[in-house]
Amino acid sequence: MTPKTLDPALEAHVRERFTRQHAMLSMGASLSYLAPGEARIEMPFNPNFTQQDGFIHAGVITTIVDSACGYAAFTLIPTDQRILTVEFKVNFMSPARGEKFIATGKVIKVGRTLTVCSGEVQSLENGERKLIALMQATMIAVK
Amino acid sequence: MTPKTLDPALEAHVRERFTRQHAMLSMGASLSYLAPGEARIEMPFNPNFTQQDGFIHAGVITTIVDSACGYAAFTLIPTDQRILTVEFKVNFMSPARGEKFIATGKVIKVGRTLTVCSGEVQSLENGERKLIALMQATMIAVK
Amino acid sequence: MTPKTLDPALEAHVRERFTRQHAMLSMGASLSYLAPGEARIEMPFNPNFTQQDGFIHAGVITTIVDSACGYAAFTLIPTDQRILTVEFKVNFMSPARGEKFIATGKVIKVGRTLTVCSGEVQSLENGERKLIALMQATMIAVK
Amino acid sequence: MTPKTLDPALEAHVRERFTRQHAMLSMGASLSYLAPGEARIEMPFNPNFTQQDGFIHAGVITTIVDSACGYAAFTLIPTDQRILTVEFKVNFMSPARGEKFIATGKVIKVGRTLTVCSGEVQSLENGERKLIALMQATMIAVK
Repeated sequence: MTPKTLDPALEAHVRERFTRQHAMLSMGASLSYLAPGEARIEMPFNPNFTQQDGFIHAGVITTIVDSACGYAAFTLIPTDQRILTVEFKVNFMSPARGEKFIATGKVIKVGRTLTVCSGEVQSLENGERKLIALMQATMIAVK
Repeated sequence: MTPKTLDPALEAHVRERFTRQHAMLSMGASLSYLAPGEARIEMPFNPNFTQQDGFIHAGVITTIVDSACGYAAFTLIPTDQRILTVEFKVNFMSPARGEKFIATGKVIKVGRTLTVCSGEVQSLENGERKLIALMQATMIAVK
Repeated sequence: MTPKTLDPALEAHVRERFTRQHAMLSMGASLSYLAPGEARIEMPFNPNFTQQDGFIHAGVITTIVDSACGYAAFTLIPTDQRILTVEFKVNFMSPARGEKFIATGKVIKVGRTLTVCSGEVQSLENGERKLIALMQATMIAVK
Repeated sequence: MTPKTLDPALEAHVRERFTRQHAMLSMGASLSYLAPGEARIEMPFNPNFTQQDGFIHAGVITTIVDSACGYAAFTLIPTDQRILTVEFKVNFMSPARGEKFIATGKVIKVGRTLTVCSGEVQSLENGERKLIALMQATMIAVK
């Protein structure tokens, strides 16, 4: 069984990697939670990343949940490897409006080469949480 | 058969909508080509939108090709309607490096409610084009 | 909140519809469980539906989990409507071998037009259950 | 560049593998065309594989186009390797009715480990062809 908390050295390693993701920084996203096989990324509403109706762009919502899935996978591989996204599929269930967006990525299956993850994004609007996007992703560990 | 060139009034309408996509502007993306059922969006390499290895983030590549598919669909619907992304799936075939990224979206099938699109992103690196991402997307027209 | 058990008349309606799915009957699949927003379909190993290595074909595994998602959605719509599959994405995590395959479909979000479902298939091999496939699907309710 | 015609020994090897796909035989599907990076599988309408409305089940349509993509990939790998489906996504654009269904799979990108394919299914109804399904798939070559 996977342990419930992450080794502090591994957490530091993952967090150091996160600071190199300029896309996350530019979007104002932060890594708010890490556990073995799980990661959470939060992003406050940002008017610079809206689509034409004033909602956060579906691609930006995808960016944070893709990163959450990637970091979730990253916690379960040897530290000399890194994770790349092979592909993902995302359903958008509601417009991305609200004060904050919380993306959670979870590892469903770690294989020898490929890791399957499941992700979701919730919006926080006037104190209410709502599931707005659902992802199913395939990641690959490379040296 | 769909005509080969877009009605100028419709093109102006689409381009006006594009300027409202703050995400596109923030990423430095521009709408470079429009035809009935087809749209192209280009984005120069931008160090603010990289992932940890210095490539453009998969989610950002997704953002431009999702928009290209959305505008492709937008050219074929009544002007009082708009397009929202229901879902998409993207395969990433090569790291997003190079000087420029060219996303093309094409409508495959317009239905009464749903439109199916196919998208791709090519990178331009040292004068060479390379297919780096492939999208299959479902869009919905709403009033 | 959705109730935990299905109205008997609705259950009979769904089960009657299932008997019309010749594909299910030909594959030897049966509807083993129904609840509001959830359905389970089981299929014993069947040598007539293998691929070249002797495992059940990925498309057949897809068929049972697509049906499970469809019936899950079907429990939540007016009885004069029916469900069609708009699209799905499936990850195959392990070869489909064993004595039996259990597909579970669950509704994640019911919208006005579209319903998003999540599905999975487990194999039963020598008494052990294993997750072998994961689906994310979009269904549409039509009259 | 890939050659336009398949080496006869390789074609025989692929066709021999096809005969082991019991699922294809049970569904009445046959391999009608092979070229480097491309395969076509045809299936006449078969009342044993319908869903509740009398159309061919979406999962069965998926089965033939998944196989077409798999064989397309199979033509481009060393003969001591085989192809397994990692994942796919399929859009269903029209009900699968008509006399015959023609699934075409094409390789878009062969990587070191993973191969990305694009597939489509056309129906033939009263002499007219219609695009009814579109697939984007990831395959893996294994020894």
